[in-house]
Formats: sequence, structure tokens, C-alpha cells
Amino acid sequence: MNYSSKLLEQAVEEFSKLPGIGKKTALRLVLNLLKREKEDVNRFAMALKNLRDEIRYCKKCHNISDIEICQLCSNPNRDGATLCVVEDIRDVMAVENTQQYKGLYHVLGGVISPMEGVGPQHLNIESLLEKVASGEVKEIIFALSTTMEGDTTNFYIFKKLKNYSVKVSTIARGIAFGDELEYADEITLGRSIANRQPYESSIIN
Amino acid sequence: MNYSSKLLEQAVEEFSKLPGIGKKTALRLVLNLLKREKEDVNRFAMALKNLRDEIRYCKKCHNISDIEICQLCSNPNRDGATLCVVEDIRDVMAVENTQQYKGLYHVLGGVISPMEGVGPQHLNIESLLEKVASGEVKEIIFALSTTMEGDTTNFYIFKKLKNYSVKVSTIARGIAFGDELEYADEITLGRSIANRQPYESSIIN
Repeated sequence: MNYSSKLLEQAVEEFSKLPGIGKKTALRLVLNLLKREKEDVNRFAMALKNLRDEIRYCKKCHNISDIEICQLCSNPNRDGATLCVVEDIRDVMAVENTQQYKGLYHVLGGVISPMEGVGPQHLNIESLLEKVASGEVKEIIFALSTTMEGDTTNFYIFKKLKNYSVKVSTIARGIAFGDELEYADEITLGRSIANRQPYESSIIN
Repeated sequence: MNYSSKLLEQAVEEFSKLPGIGKKTALRLVLNLLKREKEDVNRFAMALKNLRDEIRYCKKCHNISDIEICQLCSNPNRDGATLCVVEDIRDVMAVENTQQYKGLYHVLGGVISPMEGVGPQHLNIESLLEKVASGEVKEIIFALSTTMEGDTTNFYIFKKLKNYSVKVSTIARGIAFGDELEYADEITLGRSIANRQPYESSIIN
């Protein structure tokens, strides 16, 4: 596209580098910002700058946190013997929203993805193994996405954990509540039959 | 949502003020920025700040422009007697992309919208009337969206122009090329029959 202003073009370029935002959407966002007050836009710019410059991560679970040990890790009511392994903060928030989990988390910071140049060395896997080696962890629950990358990461960590006496599980896969069978894909349906559960455990309480 | 970090929350808040971006999308964008280099994010922040602080508009057509009189308005090959009235820079770009229009533009900067508190005094209507009063403009082409707001704005300007001897037209409304009749809405189809054109003029050249 041919923009009439360099400033405009730069702002559109930056927005369109974000995932899921093309040139047209970027231009719409930039025009929206132009209609706002100067202080509004400056606050936006400062929020971005501060975010990247000052963001900190919990030393224990690697979740984003303003304090050294995050609120979850420092909560004495949470069960430190159970670790839920997740990709990023969104998954922590999703699991927390269920209010069903009382253990702690371990945030990997991504999944192994050769296509995007992400190897095991880029993820918080070493510190997970250290936690397990220290003996404080009794159970690891994998809660990664069911993509090829997620499964690869699960398998990689699973192999690394073989030498330790720790229980390893993954969250259940199956037909979601409210889903109709005829629209379920074959793999999910096949797995949900293979992994069938005693009827009593399926009753939501 | 309950964020584990104030910095994160602020950045998500700012992103979610943009049109069409909810809290979940905002969080995804922010996490993407966190994975980038510091310089990248700082460049983004600076682009936003510079945009709002230094943006300038063409003194003639009010389009966004880095120079006082934009490239279109200062181009001697364009026909200054024809003015295409549009809402914003996106519409200028859309019309320019057709390569069918050789006149100049007049960017209103929005449309009359009582719901959003936009009245005629907020738009570049006065300067349009001045251009017409000066006698240099022979034809005005309305190219606003066919929404209630666009039609209201057309009508408002049309009434203001009644005292001047200037030709006023709007771009043709009808069935788009490639559209099937059975999916067209009644208003468009009805109008396109009422405004039928000589067959010769419908052949694309």
C-alpha cells in the first residue's frame, strides 16, 4: 500500500507485525489512535515500553509476576507436591479460573517447535528437572495444547523424567461438555472411547 | 480477569481499548511483544508516540500528510475542478487504487454521528464550502459509506451546497461485480433497478 505519510506507515508496519493483524486492520487501529487524545496515546506507548523493560518472572514457576516469588508460589495453602506444566500465563489463568486445581504451576514459556526455532534449551525445562530432582514434587500434570508441538514437548520432558520417581499424567482428552458426537473428530472420539471412565467419575459435582 | 502483574494488566488494558480487540486478543498480542527483542518493542512504542505527536494534515484536502500540501493536491496533472468527498485516508487509498479517478479529494475526517457525539462542526465541512465558494470547484462527488451516518452527512452537505452552482453526485450504488442476485438485499437490488444504466456504459473497459 502507498501511504501518504511516513509516520503513518511506520505505525501501521509495527501493528501489522502482531499476530493476526494485517495491514488493513493495522491502519484501522492507527486511525483510531489518531482520533484519541495525545495523553491517551502516550500512555499506550509508555505501557508498552514499561512492559518490555520492567517485566519480571517468578523465580519458582517462571510465570509473569511483579514480585520475586509470585502469589501462587508463595501461598501456603497450595499443594507444592503437584506441578501443572503449562505453556504460558494464559494457561495458568485458564486453569485457575476452573477453581479445581490446588497445586502449583511450572510455566515453560513456550513449546518445542523446530519450525519456529524453539528448542528445549529455550524453555524452562532445566529448572523443572531440578525441582523434581530435589524430591519436593510428587506429581507432574502436563497441560499443554494437543498440537504436534505440545505432544513433542510432553514426550521430551517425559523421557527426561524417567529416572525420577515422580508420577506423570496429562489432562484428560475427550468430548467436551455440551459437544455433540456427530461433530467430534475421529481422533478425539476414538481416544475418548479408549480412555472411557467409570460412570460415577463423570458426574459433575 | 485476574492478572499476576500490574505491568501486564496495563498493557492489556491499553490494547483492549482498540476497536475489535477484546481482553483475550489483547493478552495474546502483549505476550507476543514480550517474546520480542527490547529494541523491537521500543520502536513500536516510539512509532505510536511520534505518530500522535507529529502527525500533520494536508492544508488543502485534510488528508494525513508529512508535507504541508500533499502529493495529490500538488500534482498539476490532477483535475482541481472535481472533488471527491470521503471520510478518511482509507477511502482515499481505496479510490486511488482503482486508478479511475483523476480529480482531487476532500477528507471530512469522519461522518455526522449523534450517537458518537460527532456533529458537523467536528468535520472539515467549512473548508469544503469555502473551496466551493471560491469557484474553483465544478463538481462534488460524495463517496461516503452507505450507512445512516454517511447518508446524513451527504444530505447535510448537499443542503449547504444548494446556493452554489456546483454539480453534486454520489458514487453509483448497485449490485457489485461478481455478486449473485439471489443474495443481494432488497434495497440494493431495488435501487439498482430504479437506477438502471444504458447497457453500453456497463461494459468494463
